[in-house]
Amino acid sequence: MARYEVLSEDAMATIERGWRRLLEEIGIAFHHPEALRLFREAGQTVEDDVVRLDADFVLEQIAQAPSTFTLHARNPERSFEVGGDSMVFVPVQGPPFVRENGLRRDATFDDYCRFTKLAQVYDDFDTAGGLVVEPNDLPLDSRHLDMQLALLTLTDKPYGGSQVSLTGALDSLAMAEMVFGGADALARAPSLYTVVNVNSPLLYDGRMLDALIAYARAGQPAIITPFLLMGAMSPASIPAALVQQTAEALAGVTLAQLIRPGTPVVLGSFLSHTDMQSGSPGFGGPESAIGLFCSGQIARRLGLPWRSGGGALTSSQVPDAQAAYEGLNTMLPAFLAGANVVLHTAGWLESGLVSCYEKLVIDLEIVRTLREEFTPLEVDEASLAYGAHQEVGHGGHFLGAEHTLERFRDCFYRPLLSSTENYQRWIRNGGNDSAERATAIWQAALERYEQPPMDSALQAELEEFVTRRRAELGD
Amino acid sequence: MARYEVLSEDAMATIERGWRRLLEEIGIAFHHPEALRLFREAGQTVEDDVVRLDADFVLEQIAQAPSTFTLHARNPERSFEVGGDSMVFVPVQGPPFVRENGLRRDATFDDYCRFTKLAQVYDDFDTAGGLVVEPNDLPLDSRHLDMQLALLTLTDKPYGGSQVSLTGALDSLAMAEMVFGGADALARAPSLYTVVNVNSPLLYDGRMLDALIAYARAGQPAIITPFLLMGAMSPASIPAALVQQTAEALAGVTLAQLIRPGTPVVLGSFLSHTDMQSGSPGFGGPESAIGLFCSGQIARRLGLPWRSGGGALTSSQVPDAQAAYEGLNTMLPAFLAGANVVLHTAGWLESGLVSCYEKLVIDLEIVRTLREEFTPLEVDEASLAYGAHQEVGHGGHFLGAEHTLERFRDCFYRPLLSSTENYQRWIRNGGNDSAERATAIWQAALERYEQPPMDSALQAELEEFVTRRRAELGD
Repeated sequence: MARYEVLSEDAMATIERGWRRLLEEIGIAFHHPEALRLFREAGQTVEDDVVRLDADFVLEQIAQAPSTFTLHARNPERSFEVGGDSMVFVPVQGPPFVRENGLRRDATFDDYCRFTKLAQVYDDFDTAGGLVVEPNDLPLDSRHLDMQLALLTLTDKPYGGSQVSLTGALDSLAMAEMVFGGADALARAPSLYTVVNVNSPLLYDGRMLDALIAYARAGQPAIITPFLLMGAMSPASIPAALVQQTAEALAGVTLAQLIRPGTPVVLGSFLSHTDMQSGSPGFGGPESAIGLFCSGQIARRLGLPWRSGGGALTSSQVPDAQAAYEGLNTMLPAFLAGANVVLHTAGWLESGLVSCYEKLVIDLEIVRTLREEFTPLEVDEASLAYGAHQEVGHGGHFLGAEHTLERFRDCFYRPLLSSTENYQRWIRNGGNDSAERATAIWQAALERYEQPPMDSALQAELEEFVTRRRAELGD
Repeated sequence: MARYEVLSEDAMATIERGWRRLLEEIGIAFHHPEALRLFREAGQTVEDDVVRLDADFVLEQIAQAPSTFTLHARNPERSFEVGGDSMVFVPVQGPPFVRENGLRRDATFDDYCRFTKLAQVYDDFDTAGGLVVEPNDLPLDSRHLDMQLALLTLTDKPYGGSQVSLTGALDSLAMAEMVFGGADALARAPSLYTVVNVNSPLLYDGRMLDALIAYARAGQPAIITPFLLMGAMSPASIPAALVQQTAEALAGVTLAQLIRPGTPVVLGSFLSHTDMQSGSPGFGGPESAIGLFCSGQIARRLGLPWRSGGGALTSSQVPDAQAAYEGLNTMLPAFLAGANVVLHTAGWLESGLVSCYEKLVIDLEIVRTLREEFTPLEVDEASLAYGAHQEVGHGGHFLGAEHTLERFRDCFYRPLLSSTENYQRWIRNGGNDSAERATAIWQAALERYEQPPMDSALQAELEEFVTRRRAELGD
């Protein structure tokens, strides 16, 4: 479908001058000796931990990154393309809390497994990501092992590696090598990805760089994401935030290319605002939508796949009207802007602190609706259904027309959650609002879950690795 | 802002061939002798009550309608332009029920007055329309008098005349003449509008034509709206519905021009689908959004102002997540499609059976958000805030930066309803979801209401007219 673009050529040029100046004059801080060494060896100006990057050098480096690439699944039918016209959907990532059927509590490993299973059951998700919730009941130092094992055994889709630490990254890569036939095979056919968040403004910390370097060395893609809440991590101005986002992301992409030329990358964006009354982050407002339109336009100009901040973001505490309009007002702009990777597609609540089972169903309805909405419309003579008019004439109805009877099963989108029941019938069926109805829907989906098959020797090898590493990590 | 258009030139040509053929070969039925006489005198083929219209003749007639016009208010500051780049917002129209603070009941004249006052208080609304709810506690035959008096005295914005019957139309026009200085002055400066719904497919009934003829004679604008639920009033196909919508609306516009050349008109659209499972109308799905994108493109090609079906339409029974995502998925496409008149902007619930006070607040938040979202972004050197980066540097924050402090009050959209409160604070403040919070918001707005001044002699004249006519109508 057509992209929605709002920046004039003049505006695009102003933004390009902006990020060039930021890179060249203020530069980016990298808290990592190896990153600094690589930039220095490539002829960039390094002073303490700040790298001032030549903008043309940056453009040369990012030209080495592929404009599209495939992420390979252990079940080849689940592999997918990143970039171009494709959109990849990932469920909510990262929350320490869950909300289930009206109750809010700490997230556990059981929640992690249930959300991961839902990501496997619903074809709408291309991957479960790597961190659908933070499993707070497992030891901090070794929980990445349990999560990687769950991703590899409960799903057969591509997935996200741990980026919590160098240990997490290396363990994730070691397990992937077992599944995908060793380091070389993995590098030739990338199968797991990592998300690298910039410590905006203009800083990459050591922990994130550890992960970026490890995954880039292994040839696995990184989604490099400036995390910008305007007014806090960036100036309180959309153009300024776009400039900063571009400068920060391009600096990370450049580093990935210095580590391993041709490393697949995704230009990340996560651009929203700070509510200046509460001091809290705000989502789903006009600013983030405009940011999405512009981010897509800039990424296409740079020739890189790009990630929208999130599918259905919201500050709302519950899966209510606010959650839905804020969610749709981040998801619909992501479609209009042609985002290639949509993180936090479904389930995100409370500014990212909560993974909500009911919100996941609400958001799936939104994604499905928009996938239909942005499918090109076919207009030909047959679609005008002239014969139906000849049959029905003036003032009749089409419910029984031949044209309708031939296609009533699939002529319109069939909702997952939405109700068109009349009031009396709705009351008879319990009078439940959409959040209340959503509970039964995800519960039924979980019952449909079937674990994808895995060779038992491979499964044993993975489990042994997890047991051994857990012991080595003291848990 | 840029319009979002999805039809290729080929598709546009196919659709034009379609509506030409419908008009010329199947024709439109008009249940009104005067309409048939006018078409016959203009050289069109009339057989029984069906008029077959020459498509080129239709295009000549519609070329007489203005591409933009002004609707004049008794308070000149409230006058507005219809057409071009302007968008006019009208609250929900027509429901027989209301939902207030969780309770659903019959709508009364008190509700009518309260919704009308809310339409006056909120600058977001350009007009209260004519029928914010159906006042079921007033006698059927004379309630139009009470409603017109309320619109003229409780608001000073342009408004909608009654279209329920010829009597309703003539009484509305008589009252408008008192306020606006007589029939000639009213015709020179249109001040009230009417909505004419087609009895789709391909039929105008006598009651609607009575109103159309009366208002067109008086030079007042008509919004001529095919009411199409695909699968029931039109074939189950978006292109077929677009063709039918265009043919039906253009036939009505042509009649208005035959009655009085140059009569201002608005090309109406109200295009959604029938849920083939429940048989009930469905709103906010992908089909209606695609219909909006296309309807705007077709209306611009024809050079006429156009109306989107509705702002925030939904089938939901309560102001929940479904109500919000369906509502936004009709409102945002209306913005993308550049709708000139948005009926049912706020308050619509339950497929149009309910006017909901809380939903009105939810929808106002949506409209305000989108108005910001579709305001062109200014990108210049100053907007890049380079100085703020020089001040903050690497890894700092912008909360205390001079750039932020200078603009924190109005740099971002300030929500009416949405909460960014953290969980603990939200719980302390009652833990209310957005629908629950909305109650206090509309109640406070109603307390801010002030009746606009009116000359006491004029007010007495209007009241006398109403009393006399009510008696004549036997109520």
